[in-house]
Amino acid sequence: MAKLIGNAVVGQSGGPTAVINQSLVGVILEARKAGHIQDLLGARHGVRGIINNDFLPLKSVPTDLLERIALTPAAALGSTRDKPDQAYCQKIFESFSKNNVRHFFYIGGNDSADTARIVSDLAKQANYELRTFHIPKTIDNDLRVHDHTPGYGSAARFVASAMIGDNYDNKSLPGIKIDVIMGRHAGFLTAASVLARRFPNDGPHLVYVPEAPLSMEKLLADVDAVYSRLGRCLIAVSEGVCAPDGKTWAEKMRELEKDAHGNVQLSGTGALGDYLAEVITRNLQPAGGKKLRVRADTFGYLQRSFPGYVSKVDAKEARLVGRLAVKYSGKTETDGSVAMRRLPGERYAIETFLTPLETVARETRHLAPEYIEGGNNITQAFIDYARPLVGELPEVGTFDEL
Amino acid sequence: MAKLIGNAVVGQSGGPTAVINQSLVGVILEARKAGHIQDLLGARHGVRGIINNDFLPLKSVPTDLLERIALTPAAALGSTRDKPDQAYCQKIFESFSKNNVRHFFYIGGNDSADTARIVSDLAKQANYELRTFHIPKTIDNDLRVHDHTPGYGSAARFVASAMIGDNYDNKSLPGIKIDVIMGRHAGFLTAASVLARRFPNDGPHLVYVPEAPLSMEKLLADVDAVYSRLGRCLIAVSEGVCAPDGKTWAEKMRELEKDAHGNVQLSGTGALGDYLAEVITRNLQPAGGKKLRVRADTFGYLQRSFPGYVSKVDAKEARLVGRLAVKYSGKTETDGSVAMRRLPGERYAIETFLTPLETVARETRHLAPEYIEGGNNITQAFIDYARPLVGELPEVGTFDEL
Repeated sequence: MAKLIGNAVVGQSGGPTAVINQSLVGVILEARKAGHIQDLLGARHGVRGIINNDFLPLKSVPTDLLERIALTPAAALGSTRDKPDQAYCQKIFESFSKNNVRHFFYIGGNDSADTARIVSDLAKQANYELRTFHIPKTIDNDLRVHDHTPGYGSAARFVASAMIGDNYDNKSLPGIKIDVIMGRHAGFLTAASVLARRFPNDGPHLVYVPEAPLSMEKLLADVDAVYSRLGRCLIAVSEGVCAPDGKTWAEKMRELEKDAHGNVQLSGTGALGDYLAEVITRNLQPAGGKKLRVRADTFGYLQRSFPGYVSKVDAKEARLVGRLAVKYSGKTETDGSVAMRRLPGERYAIETFLTPLETVARETRHLAPEYIEGGNNITQAFIDYARPLVGELPEVGTFDEL
Repeated sequence: MAKLIGNAVVGQSGGPTAVINQSLVGVILEARKAGHIQDLLGARHGVRGIINNDFLPLKSVPTDLLERIALTPAAALGSTRDKPDQAYCQKIFESFSKNNVRHFFYIGGNDSADTARIVSDLAKQANYELRTFHIPKTIDNDLRVHDHTPGYGSAARFVASAMIGDNYDNKSLPGIKIDVIMGRHAGFLTAASVLARRFPNDGPHLVYVPEAPLSMEKLLADVDAVYSRLGRCLIAVSEGVCAPDGKTWAEKMRELEKDAHGNVQLSGTGALGDYLAEVITRNLQPAGGKKLRVRADTFGYLQRSFPGYVSKVDAKEARLVGRLAVKYSGKTETDGSVAMRRLPGERYAIETFLTPLETVARETRHLAPEYIEGGNNITQAFIDYARPLVGELPEVGTFDEL
């Protein structure tokens, strides 16, 4: 097979992560070594940069700067919420043929995989030789086929660590505490909160994910049971938690601003946490007793952007999938998404493979039912799955150990 | 001077910090070596443990467990929001005389210094020999006389780091972002957000502290100016930010639940951030243009409780003031608060001294006027003050450096 020689475009899309630049730097470093890639163009703000001809030449960027960019959270090229339709993808394709772009590397989630798929199809229809690769990135960990996705491990490490701290804070000044965690449709990030538990009675005591419908009656009964037993209660809840009728509590709560994808705004607001705190305060106030202390925090964008605290495994794998996409582009005539598969055995290890774009595009992967317990807890099977991705968590100690 | 021999009590009070247990462990390790301290009793949940006779003997706790507790955020003995009045302090004093307590070490903020002061006075009035020491702790950094207080450096490091990440997140997906930071009366923690700036146009672009009254007209004009120039705007605002009439915006916004000290609830809710986001969205929507993206995060309890990410200087100094309190108790007949003073010179260095309890009790220290600029920014003088307390921040890089 002859290598397809020409220029390449790389872009970043969707909600950033703490390691998305590792993937970008992986692409750049590998492209420098690859003879089949002439210019490597960085698209500013993803597909938007492509249709606006807003590119940055990347091959000549000094390595020491690249290594600092790799450590920097969020998309160094800029990101976008644009979700291209057929007409938009046509413009992308036109930009590619005008610039002799023969390799397209798109770092993103399932929407980005779908964009890559449409562009790939358009090229085929036009008999234009183009290799298109999706490089996985999402803190939600919700891509089909992929065992897990770069970005998740670091966000999960932040969430688990934050929950360790909040557990001891809540133990110091007992009360009811709600922590709202990112995750519109999938509960992987919220589930990671249980990695915080070290000792008996450590929180989170209740965990609610989008996959397990939650009624306010169940919430109140659950909180009441924990609070009666421990005198405190720490709750981890996904921003996308749903009522039994399938609507999210955020939707039910109020009509919220919609983002460009037609999604309800869940992040960047403390409203859901405050609403749940109010429901608990109103309904569980002890008769004649002292006032119940109910507080809510929404972990917010820090989960995806906190610097200097990434999972080492996650950073390494994010770099790896970027590098591999370029390697695949010189080796195969097949487009695809660069995926990881976990190898059997005691010690954590992965192998990589290319999965067709359409197997990853659009649809969301959810937490498996065996990871959820009683609609308010997460199982040991999930802990075994997530622990190697998150890496070392801070050591702690308590006088309860005596 | 003969050393006063007897038992000792140590307690922790108020909002926890990430290093408050360093001070506790400092007290325990030093008390083990001190001949004048017989039993060292840990009061569970501060003054509440003292009046309820709820003590934990601490001298025999294994050192390896102590060192893990030192790394653990929040008060390992439990904390309290109780603010003892004269009658409550009388009960504390009775517990002390019953248990032959001759040394009292209370780790907390200005309320705790006041409790120590009252108890110290009661002992004097009763001719009961008691040494009372206040060990400083507050993320607010708002104690008079003290150059700075343990707990602040780590919280400030968290805030500055979070702001680094959020700056790049906001640059990736441009819009208006509000970050609400702890600080009811003092803006030290919010001011630390400017340590995040590395390159021209880095955020936070606007910083609002309780010491500089803010009208909604000024907020809107400030945001409009930044957004027009940069196409984005990152705002750091104290939870206790005030209107020109002296009322906090949180108060003005709605009638909020009050805590045990009679304070308005500012933390543990996203309401202020959401309110400011709404004001901006409503007033700055471009006519006929695309929708303005306005988001708010409230950093919440993570600022005081995030584990594994403390300032090294802060952890060391927190340990030091705990140790010193015990040393002072064997050396002096004077009660007091263990304070740090900064030494002149290029390199950061401190000396410690004992300041009378009444010089620290009750009142709040505020950000000096020379640290605030134009009602929406923080000066280089503050950066010079805060940087050594915060320690190393994560390295970052951007393509703007090219």
